[in-house]
Amino acid sequence: MTGLPVIRYARQEDVTLILRFIRAAAEEQLPGAEVTATEERLASTLHFGPPTNAPLPPTRLARALLLFSSNAEPAGLLVFFYNYSTWAAAPGICLEELYVVPDYRQHGYGQMLIQAMACAAEAAGCIKMDWVCLKDNEKALCFYDKVEAKRIDKWHVLKVDSEGIRRLAINETWDWA
Amino acid sequence: MTGLPVIRYARQEDVTLILRFIRAAAEEQLPGAEVTATEERLASTLHFGPPTNAPLPPTRLARALLLFSSNAEPAGLLVFFYNYSTWAAAPGICLEELYVVPDYRQHGYGQMLIQAMACAAEAAGCIKMDWVCLKDNEKALCFYDKVEAKRIDKWHVLKVDSEGIRRLAINETWDWA
Repeated sequence: MTGLPVIRYARQEDVTLILRFIRAAAEEQLPGAEVTATEERLASTLHFGPPTNAPLPPTRLARALLLFSSNAEPAGLLVFFYNYSTWAAAPGICLEELYVVPDYRQHGYGQMLIQAMACAAEAAGCIKMDWVCLKDNEKALCFYDKVEAKRIDKWHVLKVDSEGIRRLAINETWDWA
Repeated sequence: MTGLPVIRYARQEDVTLILRFIRAAAEEQLPGAEVTATEERLASTLHFGPPTNAPLPPTRLARALLLFSSNAEPAGLLVFFYNYSTWAAAPGICLEELYVVPDYRQHGYGQMLIQAMACAAEAAGCIKMDWVCLKDNEKALCFYDKVEAKRIDKWHVLKVDSEGIRRLAINETWDWA
């Protein structure tokens, strides 16, 4: 029996599948990349189930969408979190991970996942979606062109790693109130 | 009377000051920039008070730190939100806004605000802090060098605006489960 592909928000019991997809995506983007995620950490940091108006645990920051193919096989993953624009005083969505199982590429599944994220963005009143992509990932960039994502070349991305955070944090020269 | 500068998390009654600082920062970065934020929208989208373990309203996404000078004048603002890394299954922090009142520059206040954000990042177990900066903002880039933020040049930043979100969201070719 085949039908439309199905997209749903991830549940607690999906963490094994999610970790498998995260590892496969990392290996494809950056072979040998260090993936320190574990099932336990995903279980404690992802927010499961669809967005609601109920208060959220402050430690669950990201949401995962899973796509099941028209023959009901797990075929894709998208992870996003909400971000914020002060200029608009409004939320946005940041795409953190997008993966489609190789056998299911050229089915439009990546685009469906992006569209599902756009539905989530619209429902939450988001004024933008943004994300980063490796400059040498031509295939991904070509796909992102199709969903009309614009490359913003006027910004530098800046990053402080966990060592840098520690160095900065120990140096208090002010009072906390 | 003078003492150490004071940093605290913003409160609901600070929105007038926060909006003033956001507008001043925007005007300095990009003269004529459209700032659609209002006091009402800031009041309903910022999370006020220090982070706790209590559940959060899902619509309050960002936190603001305010710095008061050693003579107790409002002198700086930093806005951040939590982001997420799937590879680490751990949170990060994104710097969304940093502003120091011109009269109070060269006092190390910008660095104190970044350090206060690093304290928040460490308390929340964050594995990174990241943000974007206009490539032609030499002054800001020079300051970010001092806090040892690395420029990540291997990524393109991609963005879909609210029009693009709408176009993507109306095009459902899957079932939601």
